[in-house]
Amino acid sequence: VLNQDDKALKNLLSEYHYADIAEILDELNLDDSVYVIKLLDSETTSDILMELDEDNREKVLKNLSSKEIAEEVEELDTDDAADIIAELPEERQAEVISKIEDAEHKAEIEELLAYDESSAGGLMAKELVKVYETWTVAGCLRRIRGQARDVTRVHSIYVVDKQEKLIGRLSLKDLIVAKSEQKISDIYITNVDFVNVDEDVEEVAKVMAKYDLEAIPVVDENQTLLGRITIDDIIDVLREEADKDYQLAAGITQDVEADDSILQLTKARLPWLVLGLFGGLGSVFIMQGYENIMATVPSLFFYTPLIAAMAGNVGVQSSAIIVQGLANNNVKGSLINRLLKEVGLSLINGFALALLVMLFGYLVGQNTTESLAIAVSMMSVIVVAALVGTFVPIILDKRGIDPAIATGPFITTSNDILGIYLFFVIAGKIIGF
Amino acid sequence: VLNQDDKALKNLLSEYHYADIAEILDELNLDDSVYVIKLLDSETTSDILMELDEDNREKVLKNLSSKEIAEEVEELDTDDAADIIAELPEERQAEVISKIEDAEHKAEIEELLAYDESSAGGLMAKELVKVYETWTVAGCLRRIRGQARDVTRVHSIYVVDKQEKLIGRLSLKDLIVAKSEQKISDIYITNVDFVNVDEDVEEVAKVMAKYDLEAIPVVDENQTLLGRITIDDIIDVLREEADKDYQLAAGITQDVEADDSILQLTKARLPWLVLGLFGGLGSVFIMQGYENIMATVPSLFFYTPLIAAMAGNVGVQSSAIIVQGLANNNVKGSLINRLLKEVGLSLINGFALALLVMLFGYLVGQNTTESLAIAVSMMSVIVVAALVGTFVPIILDKRGIDPAIATGPFITTSNDILGIYLFFVIAGKIIGF
Repeated sequence: VLNQDDKALKNLLSEYHYADIAEILDELNLDDSVYVIKLLDSETTSDILMELDEDNREKVLKNLSSKEIAEEVEELDTDDAADIIAELPEERQAEVISKIEDAEHKAEIEELLAYDESSAGGLMAKELVKVYETWTVAGCLRRIRGQARDVTRVHSIYVVDKQEKLIGRLSLKDLIVAKSEQKISDIYITNVDFVNVDEDVEEVAKVMAKYDLEAIPVVDENQTLLGRITIDDIIDVLREEADKDYQLAAGITQDVEADDSILQLTKARLPWLVLGLFGGLGSVFIMQGYENIMATVPSLFFYTPLIAAMAGNVGVQSSAIIVQGLANNNVKGSLINRLLKEVGLSLINGFALALLVMLFGYLVGQNTTESLAIAVSMMSVIVVAALVGTFVPIILDKRGIDPAIATGPFITTSNDILGIYLFFVIAGKIIGF
Repeated sequence: VLNQDDKALKNLLSEYHYADIAEILDELNLDDSVYVIKLLDSETTSDILMELDEDNREKVLKNLSSKEIAEEVEELDTDDAADIIAELPEERQAEVISKIEDAEHKAEIEELLAYDESSAGGLMAKELVKVYETWTVAGCLRRIRGQARDVTRVHSIYVVDKQEKLIGRLSLKDLIVAKSEQKISDIYITNVDFVNVDEDVEEVAKVMAKYDLEAIPVVDENQTLLGRITIDDIIDVLREEADKDYQLAAGITQDVEADDSILQLTKARLPWLVLGLFGGLGSVFIMQGYENIMATVPSLFFYTPLIAAMAGNVGVQSSAIIVQGLANNNVKGSLINRLLKEVGLSLINGFALALLVMLFGYLVGQNTTESLAIAVSMMSVIVVAALVGTFVPIILDKRGIDPAIATGPFITTSNDILGIYLFFVIAGKIIGF
C-alpha cells in the first residue's frame, strides 16, 4: 500500500469516505497508520480517528504529539472531542486541552469531560441551533446560517427564553414553510421532549427509540438548555448494550472482540469457566453420595449429562425471554400469573420430552420402572429449571442488578447442580433407594 | 379507565403522545382498545396503531371494518401503511386497498407491497423531497414547501436529473445557507450514498451505521430514485436482529415475547430441547459402552456433567465471540492464525481449570492417576470444544447460513457428546482400560 509516493497516496485516499479509510488503517500496521494520519490534513484524519477501532486509536494517539492531538480535536464536534480526550492517560489530557486554540471549544470540551460517561451529559454535544422566542422568522434564518455552519446536522432548532431555558422546538421544515415576518413565539411547538443531564444513557436510548426522535435536547435541573444528543450516538449505545447482553449470556464479561489479545480474552472468559467448574464439582459431590446404588441402577448415572443439559437449556430459554422482556418493558401482569404460565409451559415441554425418554428406554430394552423414574424426575427438573430461569432475572432486576448477568453460565451452573440433586432424590423415591 | 364519558376521555388522551397511548392500550382488554381507537380521530389513531404490540394490533384490526382501516392507512406514511396492510389476511388486503381514496397514496402502497419485506424496497417510504438540478435555490425553497408538508422529517433533499436519476443530495442546511439566486446544480453534493432496492435490510443497516447516515435514498438498477429509508426504521431492524441473535443463542426460534401464548412459546422452545435431548441420549449410549469400568473407576462417571458443562460453556464462549465478530465485520486474519490463537487461549484456560481439578482431587483424597486422567482429558475436551465453537460459525457463514444459529443448543449439544466421548477415550488411555 505504502510506496512512499505521498502525493499519489493522498489523491487516492481523498476519494474514500473517512469510514472506509479507517477500515483500511485498522488492517495496516501501526507505523503505516501513523504515517497516513500525519500525511492527511486534520479535517479528514479527525473523522478517521473517531472511526478507528478503540485499541488501534489508542496506539495511534500514543504516536502523536499533544499538539497534533489538539489539532485533531479542534476539528471534531465537542462530544467526539471529549471522547477522544477521555481515552488518553490523565497526564496527557491536561496537556492536550491546554493546546486547543479555540477558547470556546476548549471550555465546552472541559465541561463535557466533567460528566459521567454513562449519563446524558457524557453523550451530548454542545453543537446545536438555538433561537430566542422573540426573533422573527427572517431574522432567525439569517442567524441560523451562522450557527448552522458549526453543526453537522441540524435536526431540530431549540427555542429558549431570555434565561436560556428550553421552552420549545422548531423544525427546519417549519421554518422554511413559515412566512418570513412571523415571530418565533407564534410558530414554535411547545411540546418538546428533553432529558436531564444526569439521565442514564440507556434510559435516553429508550426514550428516543420510543418516540422516534432523531435528536433530543439535554437540560439541567433549571431547564437550561445544555446540549443535545443525536440518534447516531444512540445507535452506538444500543449496539453496545446488545453486544454486552449477548456476551454476558455466553459467559463473557467485559467488552472483548475476536481480535483482542489472548490475555484480555482469558480475563473475560476464565472466571465464568471457573464458576462452571465449581458447579461441576458440586455435581461430583452429589453423585458420590449415591455411589452405593451404582451397582444396582447404573443407568441413572448415564443420564446425568442429559439431565444437566435439559436443566441448563430450559433455564437459559426462560431467562432469555424474561431478560429481553425486561429490557423492552413488556413483562406485564402479576408474578403469580407468570409463575402459573411458566409451570404450564414447562409441564407441556417436560411431558413431551418425558415421552421421548420413555420411548428411548423401551427401544433399548431398559427396565420400565427405571425409565419411568428417569422420565418423571427429568420432568420435575425441567419445571424447577424454568422457574429458576424466570425468577432469578426478575429478582435481580427488582434489586437493581442487570438481569442479563443471570442468563448463561450463572443459570446453567445453578440449574446443573439443582437438577442433578433433584434427579437423584425423585428417581430414588420412585425406584426406592 | 373507561367510564363512558367520551369527551373527558378524549381530552385526557389528547395530552398524551401516541406512543404513550399505545402503551396504555397494550394493557387494556380488546373491547376497550377498539373503543378508544374508534373514539379518537384517525390522524392520532394511525400513529397509535403503528406503536401497538403486533399481536394486539392484529386483534384490533380484526375489529375494524375495511373502510376504517383504509382511513387509518390514508394518514400513515407509505412505508407504515404498507406494513399494516401486509399484516392483514390476503383477502382483506385487496378490500382495504380498494377503499383508499387518495389514488397516488394507493398506487405507492401497492408498489411497496410488491417488494420483499427483508429488502430495502420493503423498508423504504415513498415520501421524500426531490429537486431537479435545473431549479434555483429560491424556486426550490418554494416548491419544497409543498413537498415537505407530506414528509414527516426532511433529512436530505435528493437531486435528480431529467430522467429522475439520482445524481446528488442537498441538506436543508445547505439550502438555507445558500443565496437564493444560485442554481441547484452549483450547490448540490454529488457524493451521495444510496442502496439498491433489492439490497438486504441488514446490509442497509450496516451501511447507514457505518457512515452515520440518517436517511438513505433507494434506487433501482437504472439509478432511478424510488424512495428513502430513515434511521428510525433501521433502529428497529438493528433491535430485531439483536433480539433474534440473543434468542437463537438461548435456543429459541421465532420472535417470541414473554407475553406470547403458551403454544407459541412451546413451538419456539421445544424443538431445541428435543435436540438437546437427543444429544443427552447420545451421551447415554457412549457411557453404556463403558459400563464395565463402573466398578473400578466410578469417579469418571461423577465427572461427566462437569465435562459436559465445560465443553458446552467453552463452545458457547468461542462461538459467541466469532458470531459477533462476523456480524461487526471484525474477524480478520487467516484461519490458521485464528486456529493457533484459539488453541493457545483454550490451553491457558484448560490448564488453569485442570490445576483446580487436581487440587480438588487431592483435597477429597482421590487417586492421583484418576485425578490426572480427569484433568488431562478435561483439558483436551476444552481445546476441542473451543475449536468446534470457533469453526462451526465460520463454516456456516462461508456457506451463507446465519452463524448465530451455531451459538447455543447446537454447539452445546454437539460439544456435550463429543466431550464425553473424548473424556472416556483419553482418560481410558491414561488409566489403562
